[in-house]
Parts: sequence; structure tokens; C-alpha cells
Amino acid sequence: MSKNDDRLLFLPLGGSGEIGMNLNLYAHKGKWLMVDCEMSFAGDHFPGVDLVFPDPTFIEREKDQLLGLVVTHGHEDHIGAIPHIWRRFECPIYATPFTAELITDKLAEAGLLDEVALHIVEHDGAFGLGPFTITYLALAHSTAEGHGLVIKTSQGTVFHTGDWKLDPNPLIGPICPSDKLKALGDEGVLAMVGDSTNVFNPENAGSELAVRDSLIKVCEGRTGRIVLTTFASNVARLDTAGEVARATGRHVVLLGRSMQRITKAAKATGYLKNFPDVLDEEDASHIPRDKILILCTGCQGENRAALARIARNEHKHLTLAADDTVIFSSKIIPGNELVLGQLFNVLASNKINVITEKDAFVHVSGHPGQADLKDMYDWVRPQIAIPVHGEARHLLAHAALARGCGINHALVPANGDIIEINQSGAHKVDDAPVGRMILDGDQVIPADSPSIGDRRRASQQGFVTASIVLEEDGTLAADPQLAVLGLPAREPGIFYDQLMDACELAIDRMKPKQRLNDGNVEEGVRVSLRRLCRAQLGKNPGVAVLISRLEEPVY
Amino acid sequence: MSKNDDRLLFLPLGGSGEIGMNLNLYAHKGKWLMVDCEMSFAGDHFPGVDLVFPDPTFIEREKDQLLGLVVTHGHEDHIGAIPHIWRRFECPIYATPFTAELITDKLAEAGLLDEVALHIVEHDGAFGLGPFTITYLALAHSTAEGHGLVIKTSQGTVFHTGDWKLDPNPLIGPICPSDKLKALGDEGVLAMVGDSTNVFNPENAGSELAVRDSLIKVCEGRTGRIVLTTFASNVARLDTAGEVARATGRHVVLLGRSMQRITKAAKATGYLKNFPDVLDEEDASHIPRDKILILCTGCQGENRAALARIARNEHKHLTLAADDTVIFSSKIIPGNELVLGQLFNVLASNKINVITEKDAFVHVSGHPGQADLKDMYDWVRPQIAIPVHGEARHLLAHAALARGCGINHALVPANGDIIEINQSGAHKVDDAPVGRMILDGDQVIPADSPSIGDRRRASQQGFVTASIVLEEDGTLAADPQLAVLGLPAREPGIFYDQLMDACELAIDRMKPKQRLNDGNVEEGVRVSLRRLCRAQLGKNPGVAVLISRLEEPVY
Repeated sequence: MSKNDDRLLFLPLGGSGEIGMNLNLYAHKGKWLMVDCEMSFAGDHFPGVDLVFPDPTFIEREKDQLLGLVVTHGHEDHIGAIPHIWRRFECPIYATPFTAELITDKLAEAGLLDEVALHIVEHDGAFGLGPFTITYLALAHSTAEGHGLVIKTSQGTVFHTGDWKLDPNPLIGPICPSDKLKALGDEGVLAMVGDSTNVFNPENAGSELAVRDSLIKVCEGRTGRIVLTTFASNVARLDTAGEVARATGRHVVLLGRSMQRITKAAKATGYLKNFPDVLDEEDASHIPRDKILILCTGCQGENRAALARIARNEHKHLTLAADDTVIFSSKIIPGNELVLGQLFNVLASNKINVITEKDAFVHVSGHPGQADLKDMYDWVRPQIAIPVHGEARHLLAHAALARGCGINHALVPANGDIIEINQSGAHKVDDAPVGRMILDGDQVIPADSPSIGDRRRASQQGFVTASIVLEEDGTLAADPQLAVLGLPAREPGIFYDQLMDACELAIDRMKPKQRLNDGNVEEGVRVSLRRLCRAQLGKNPGVAVLISRLEEPVY
Repeated sequence: MSKNDDRLLFLPLGGSGEIGMNLNLYAHKGKWLMVDCEMSFAGDHFPGVDLVFPDPTFIEREKDQLLGLVVTHGHEDHIGAIPHIWRRFECPIYATPFTAELITDKLAEAGLLDEVALHIVEHDGAFGLGPFTITYLALAHSTAEGHGLVIKTSQGTVFHTGDWKLDPNPLIGPICPSDKLKALGDEGVLAMVGDSTNVFNPENAGSELAVRDSLIKVCEGRTGRIVLTTFASNVARLDTAGEVARATGRHVVLLGRSMQRITKAAKATGYLKNFPDVLDEEDASHIPRDKILILCTGCQGENRAALARIARNEHKHLTLAADDTVIFSSKIIPGNELVLGQLFNVLASNKINVITEKDAFVHVSGHPGQADLKDMYDWVRPQIAIPVHGEARHLLAHAALARGCGINHALVPANGDIIEINQSGAHKVDDAPVGRMILDGDQVIPADSPSIGDRRRASQQGFVTASIVLEEDGTLAADPQLAVLGLPAREPGIFYDQLMDACELAIDRMKPKQRLNDGNVEEGVRVSLRRLCRAQLGKNPGVAVLISRLEEPVY
């Protein structure tokens, strides 16, 4: 893109067709702007892998023209890719104070603090970046300092919503900025690029204040310990936990590394000012059970998080007992149903009360439902709607909703679509390479790397390695050796002997000339071992045959 | 247990603490009775494994005293363990006609047909088995011929509900047998052992007739093809699909092996009498889209089932296009959310309408909600309630509900609890060994077999095998050979060389005497390779070292 190119382009590298992994790019006059840089947690599909990111290859190639990464908000998973892929595109980062505090932590941990230019933008701050003028517009979300971005260009204004909801009383941050949004609409918005996560919720998202009131009622009069678990990043909810403790005469105990980290960052940037003094874990064990509220991580049932550990009675100081209560002030993220179900069972078996959002009003979402989306479209009145932050069905439903709100142009993007936005609408003009990267061990590699496929195959079918030592003339110089991984032989010793016999027989059956070629021997042994595994066990393992050929000794 | 032992014992080997895998035993006067023999589908926790069963070791040891396996109903997963573990306890099987037809299929496939004595019990039939008198009592469920069992003994009567619901119009089978149940209560029931699956549903289960009426409305006026997917075993729903087709002027196409099998078994035993003639897949492709209703398997998003294949456009004759409709007349089984979400996305992306139970009334459950349970307890009035068929939290909630219904004794069992039932209540008196078996390849092995753990570990961390060929004196006779499985090396060639160097260095560093011992060499090389993988990649793979030691040639 040349600097005389007056077009305004939008390119999602992640998040359009999936929830999470938002990485969006805008281009104008030869310059690029990145908005957010998210990771996701890898599921069972990537065994042994923790994190997944969008592949930044496209912007890596354009990095000389990349002006900056503007971060809308500081959700753990929303800034989580930065330490892992920042080096691929090396650009300045812009964020508001709380978000910047969290990014600083991450950069420090990755040893990148001295290399990254991290600019702190004031609340509702504005700044210019080449051909873009960017204004932060505070919106409620399930963490502190959620923001939409008003991005002005010579082609017109894009309103990039980030993750948002409308909340008449979000407890933290400004109340619903309907006037600002209406004023933005009055000025004229070319395109709104926005959150589709909860488009299937016909209502509005609901208010943090209402959750606070309800949580206090839910906790009043309980006689045992109360555990409240939520995402640590939900600063308003943490504040609520403090208020619940105060209202019910309990001391707060904080459990979990990210609870500690977020409360520290929140306090450092002016939040949680009224949060009660926190009780030490050990001290808590000496205080009556009905005077304790444990605020902890692990609301998704994560095996190593604080909640799962105290549920399994693995915590040094704190235990749960009959009549205690665990409140999941959170939603169940799809994919976590079974793990959470197991945790509920462990708790129920110990006669601990379990309260989830299905049992009582203990959670509201941070993403807009249909009612919120309709208000937003009524206020902002963009010429074009571009739904992002959702799976295909969310984006399609959001586009239909936008059309129902009178928006003439609604375009559903897919990751890698280069989309031109102008007065005539939004149109795909080109494709960019896309993909996913994973953090495997400490290596960031493409998600479709053969190592992952190999592991997945081995996890299903097992793996056999045979070591074959041959004389130069192709006769066996030693017994075949075998490593058998994950095969369901009920008598491993007998099966091992059968494998050895199969190796020897495969070589015996070869013509002397064939045995001179390592490839022939390898293939013959492999086929023979595969056949045996299928016939004996009904398994189809991967097979590696390692050939060592001795050189004729020189006397 | 001696034949003079007058006690009545109940022992669940599966299903108490989990949904599925029901295998229940009753003992009286030295004889055992088995009720149901279920499998479950293995999830991601058992990679490469299809099926999981309860471990029958306890009853295998008692098989001389086992009088029979009485099957309450023929759900695929409820009879699915029979062909795989029947040989462990070899006893006659009792089932009603439709169920027996399905069991026959399974036995034939496993080559067991000539060995198993399969007794067909008439509807509401009764028969004696040693000290037990068993009467089948028809109850509605989500398959044909659901039954509770009235088991009479000298200690009193147990009502074993099986899977059930109350349905004022189940379409197939008798309407809600409240009179029979009240009469049973009047006669006196010592204990009710019953289904807890849907105890968290505050309502009743709902009626098949109501679903039929709603499905006809949902399908009326649609212009594209309609695909209706449900569990094949739900014979009433299949019948409904036929009626929907008739009411909307469509031809039925059946897709999926189990759809074919179940309709065949149902027709053979007198069901689906009004089912319309089925259209051949190829012929269907020549008929207008709005004249087709495809009834198919795959309602849980199973990758290889008919629905997923037509959604991916892999079917030879039938395709889906914009404006077609796919109706999931089924629930989402926990754990299948992500796979189903992906399928919804594929369909939505192709502009195919997706209707699930969240969008319209297209499904009712086959298990009792709280309203059904209360009616049942009011009618049967057992002295003791023993909730089974549920996870811990379901069983506990069911026990609480039973107490609320005025049942004095409610005992929550766990798999392996040997429970004595008598006039004074139900009490655990002993433990039986329990566990799970899996079908891995064609081997039935314990679920905690090391092969599974090995595979799981390899799927997360990878696996390295080194082949080391040594002279008798411990010097290397050939270059080390390596098989590397699933490691994220970005330059595999360089990494391979590093591994080779690590092998050689490990051996070099050993004292000559150490090299004479294979175990020493193995351990030294293993440690060295592990260390390299951790340092270079941050991975912690399993390592196997295969040592071949050459014998000194004799000249």
C-alpha cells in the first residue's frame, strides 16, 4: 500500500469467526494500525499446548509501516499474545493506565520491558498516529477500563467498539455514555466494527450493581465459609466481593496468583479504593467459618487454580466443609462444562452448597445482548456494520440484527479478508495469509505443525520404534530392540517377543540384495510391525524403524 | 453369600456417580441378578478409545451364582457393553421384543449369537429367577419399550425404575401408567431405585405428542430441504418425523447406519407401522428441495455421522444449500458443546437455518424432572429411596427431593457400595471392587492401564527414542539413531544433530567401566536427551533408549 493510497482498509487476522484471538488491522495512506493482540487458551484439540494466537505473518511483513498497537482493554486473554509475538512486528503500544499496568507485568515477565515503547493514554484520551486520529471512548465491560476506539481518517470515522456492554451502573468507570455515543452518531460514523459475542441473548447484558445487590442477599445469613469465584480481571466484581464481605460481616481472603496481581494493578491505578483489608490465609484458618469470604480464581474449574485446590482439600491453610458455600459468579465458557461438572460433584459430595448463575442471579455478562446492540445502533447510526468478535453464526446474526436496525450495509468478515470501507459500503478486495500459532513448550510454532499432528495420532494409536542393527551384508548383527508406546497389549512380554519375531521375519524374507538398502529394510520392518499391531490389537500405531549399519571392520 | 442368607443386597458397579454405564446387581439367598449393562462413549480423556464400561470383575467372580441379566430398555449405550464384556460373566439375558431385536444385532456382530441364551419377555411380562420374581412395568422413555422392573423377594419389593418419564401421550407404548404405579404402592414397596438424570429440571419432562405438534408447525411453509436429526433409538421421534413429512408434503430420506438399523428393528417388532415409504438417497437428489425431509444421525455433531458429512458437503447424492433447514430434535449432551458449535457455524456460514431446542420447542427429554419424580413418589410411596443414574450432585439432589416427598430413608450409593435393604432402611455393609474398562483397538483393558497414561503423556510432551549400538567394550559401533515424535523444533535437522551430539557426549563422559553396563548407558543417554529437550524447547518428552551391544566377533 503506497502512502498515496487513500483507501481505508480493515483486516481481521483473528477474532472474525471465533470468540477470542482478536487481532484487527486498519490501513490508510500506506500505514497500518493494530487494534488488540489476543490469545486464547488451547483446548483438548492441542494436547500439551497452553496458548493459541493469531498468526502475525502478514503484519510482520508490513512492520515498517505499522504505527502502533492500540489496546482497547486489559483482559488477560486480550493482551496475552503480546509477550509471545510482539517481536514479530515490534511497534509501540498504546493503552489506558490499568491496562498498561497489566501489560507492563507481562512485558517484565518476558524480559521485554526495556524494548517496548508503552504509551499510557489518559481516560478518554486522544492522539494521532500518522493518518489516524484515535480517541478512547470508555464503555462498560467485565474489566476495568473497557474502551471503544473512535478512529478518524480522511475517508471517514470508524467506531471500533472493542468488548462492551451498556450498564446503567457499572460500579467502576463512567455510566452508560449514551450522550457521547449519540454525539458521535451526529458527527457521522462511516463504519462500526463491533462485538458479536452475546448476540443470541435477546435481553440486555444487565448491570453490575444489580449483581452486587443480589450477591449480598445470596450471602446473608449463611453460616459456613463463603467462597466467591470469578475472573480476577473483573475489577467491579472484586469490588463487589469486598462489599459483600462488609455487608455480611466477613473478612476477605484472596486466593490465586491472578487475584493478587489484578488487585495490585487495580489499586495502583486508583481502583478498589474501598476494598477491605485482606486477611492472610493462615490467619483466616483461626477465624470462625461464618466470618470468612474467600475470593478466588478457578471459576472455570481449572485444575491448578485455587478453587480446585481447596475443593480437593490440597490447600495448606484453608479447607471447605459441610454447609460452606461456593458461588460461581461467572459464566460457564463453552468447552468447560465437563470439568466444571466434576468440580460441582466434588463440592456436592462434601455437602458444600454450590451456587451458579443457573441457581441465582450472581453474574452478568460483559458483552452486549440484542437490546444493547439495538440501542448502540440507534445512537451511533453507522453507514456500515462490520460484526467481529464471534463465531460465524454470531457474526451472521449480528449482521441481520444490524440490518433490522436500519443499517444499510452489513458485512460479515472472515479472518484474512482485506476489506475496503468507503461511502459505497464495505467490500472485500483481497486476502491476507492467516493462521494460528501455538505456544508449545517455550516455542511459538504454527498450529498446524506436524509435531502436533504426530502427537495427536500417537495419543490415539500409540507408537512403536524398532532399532535394527545390520551387518554391511544385511544380516542382523544384534537382536532387534523395541520401544512400545501406548499399546493395549495385555501381556506386554509376549507381545514384545511377537514384535521382535516380526522384525526378524521381515528381514529374513527379503532377498539378500534388498537387505543392502536401508530404505528397503526400514519399509519392510515397518509394514510388518503395523500388520502385527492391527492383527493382534486392532491398533494402527505410528512406526519408526531406526537402522544402524555396521561397517566391515578393517583388520 | 450363602443360599441361607436372607438379606437383600443392592450393588451398583456403574452409574452411581456418573450418567451412563449403569450396571446394577441385586443379591438374595446366595443368587445374583444383573440389571442393565451399559457402556459410555469415551471422551477426550481417553484418546483413541471409543467405549468405556464398568469393570465386571466382581460379578465375574460370582458368575456361577448369577441368574441373569435383565435389560430395562434398548438404548444403544445401555446394551452396548454386552458384546464386549458378556464373556466375563456369561449368563442368560432377558429383554422385551424390541430391545431383544437390538441385542440380537449386537450379539450377531460379535459372533456371540449362538452362545447367549436371550429370552424374550412379553410386554408387562413376569418371570421368576431363583429367589427373585421380576415383572416388567412399561414406562415412557426416549426409546421404545422403556421399563421399570418390579423385583419381588422374601424381604420385600424393589421397584427399579430404569430410565423413565411420565408422558400423557408418548405416541409409542402405553400412556402414563399411574393406576399401575398406585396399585404397586398399595401393595407396598420396600425400596425404589431410580433415575436421577434430570433432577435439576423443576418441571416435568414433557410429552412426545407436544413435540410432534410443534415440529409440524416449525416445518410448515419452509421452502428448502429439511434435515431432522435425533437419536436413532427414539422410535417415537422417528414416527414423528414420518408424520411431519406427511403433514408438510415431503418424502422421507433416511441417512445413517443406526437410523437404518433402528427402523428395521422397530418395524420387525410392530412399531412404525404408519411410517411412510422411504426415498432412496439418489432418487431424492432429483426431487424438489421442498419435498424432502432427511431424517439422519449425528445430532451430537459426531464427525463421521451423516449430518456432519452432508454439512461438509461430503455426501454422494445429498447436499445442503442456502435456505435449507437443519433441526436438532435433541439435547446437547454435556461435553459436545464445542463440536456442535463448530457444526452450527458450518451450517450458518452456508446460510442454512439451524433450529435447536434453544430456538424452538423441538425436543423433550426422556428422563423425569422434579414434577415427574414427585408424582412417582406420591404413587409408589417406597419406604426407601435409592437414587442412581446420576453424578454425585444429581444423586444428592434426588435424595433431598425424595425426603421432601415424605420418604423416610434416602441413601445415596456410590459404585461399589454393597447395600443391604431391609425394613429398617438401606445401609452400606461392604465394598466391592469397581473400576472402568475401555475398548482400545479391539482389546478390553482397564481404563487405568499404563498404555493410556503413556499415550496421554506423549500427546502433551512428545516422545524421543534413541538407538545406541555399542561394542562389547562400550565404544559406539555406529552413529546414534533417533526417532523424534511430536517436538516443536523449528529446525528439525539442527535439533536432530543436537540430539545425536547429546547421545555421544553422554557416552563419552562415562567412565569406561560404566559403559560396560547397558542400564548405565541407557540412563545417561536418557537424562542427557531430556535435559536437551527442556533447555532447547521447554518440553519434557518421554525418552526410550534402545541399546544393542555387539558381541566380539570370533575369528
